[in-house]
Amino acid sequence: MTTHHETIRQYDKMLDNLGKWLDKAEEHAKAKKFDADLLAGARLAPDAFSLAQQVQAACDQAKFAAAYLSGKKAPPHPDTEKTLAELRTRIQSCKAFLATVEEKDFAGSEDRKVAPPWLPKGWFRGDDYLNGLSIPNFYFHATMAYAILRHNGVEVGKMDFIGGLNIQEG
Amino acid sequence: MTTHHETIRQYDKMLDNLGKWLDKAEEHAKAKKFDADLLAGARLAPDAFSLAQQVQAACDQAKFAAAYLSGKKAPPHPDTEKTLAELRTRIQSCKAFLATVEEKDFAGSEDRKVAPPWLPKGWFRGDDYLNGLSIPNFYFHATMAYAILRHNGVEVGKMDFIGGLNIQEG
Repeated sequence: MTTHHETIRQYDKMLDNLGKWLDKAEEHAKAKKFDADLLAGARLAPDAFSLAQQVQAACDQAKFAAAYLSGKKAPPHPDTEKTLAELRTRIQSCKAFLATVEEKDFAGSEDRKVAPPWLPKGWFRGDDYLNGLSIPNFYFHATMAYAILRHNGVEVGKMDFIGGLNIQEG
Repeated sequence: MTTHHETIRQYDKMLDNLGKWLDKAEEHAKAKKFDADLLAGARLAPDAFSLAQQVQAACDQAKFAAAYLSGKKAPPHPDTEKTLAELRTRIQSCKAFLATVEEKDFAGSEDRKVAPPWLPKGWFRGDDYLNGLSIPNFYFHATMAYAILRHNGVEVGKMDFIGGLNIQEG
């Protein structure tokens, strides 16, 4: 079994990876001589989230999972980012909050009542929330951010998505 | 904490959702009067996986996680699917295998040595494999399949991605 704290640490790692895809986006824009921040507004369909919105949403999924499952209060983020530099700051701010939530804060979190403000009535068991809602949503937005960059020619590959691996020897 | 069995059940649910996106793709093709199977070859970049490959890869991630973490042998799939109907059959075959793996088969799976054939040396702890490799990869390929359909005008939305929610009353 995977503890909720381990999942939040994995989100933190994925946010690091996401920051590195933005670095590659800037390198690509520089080589092709276009304004890298144009990519922040890129989207896969006219009625789909832009790159900036996908990054904001990935950060929010990580932040709210850490908050809802630990009982801590998430810091507000007004979704005003329009540049890659601002998105990088958003990622760092989200990571700083994740770092404040310790393993012990998740004690009993599988049975914690999670009632997000958008849910009209009822609540989720902590475990159902994480497994059936937070994880799919987090990876959805992270992957959509990656997909937008990939579609726009940025040289990101699968290992940029996954990041470092924890390989045991022997 | 989320048990490995719960994660595999969540994969199973996502594979159901994926099948429904393919249904929506067929409805869209019918309304627009084009051959739905053209979508099986659609991709977001010339050097990225096609929809068919994304579906195959999502199925494989689910199948191998269930096999590696339970010690069962995964059935082979030669990746020959070229139509949406064949992809649907692949999904069903994967789900049939997942259904054979029971909760008790995952006993001790967090510490199981997972050594996929593509890893040159060493191994992953079961938990590291699931959290750091299988889950990101599974959702990556599921989301990329969704992204290809979304980019091609298929009317899939976020709730099609997430599927049914386990809401508690009271």
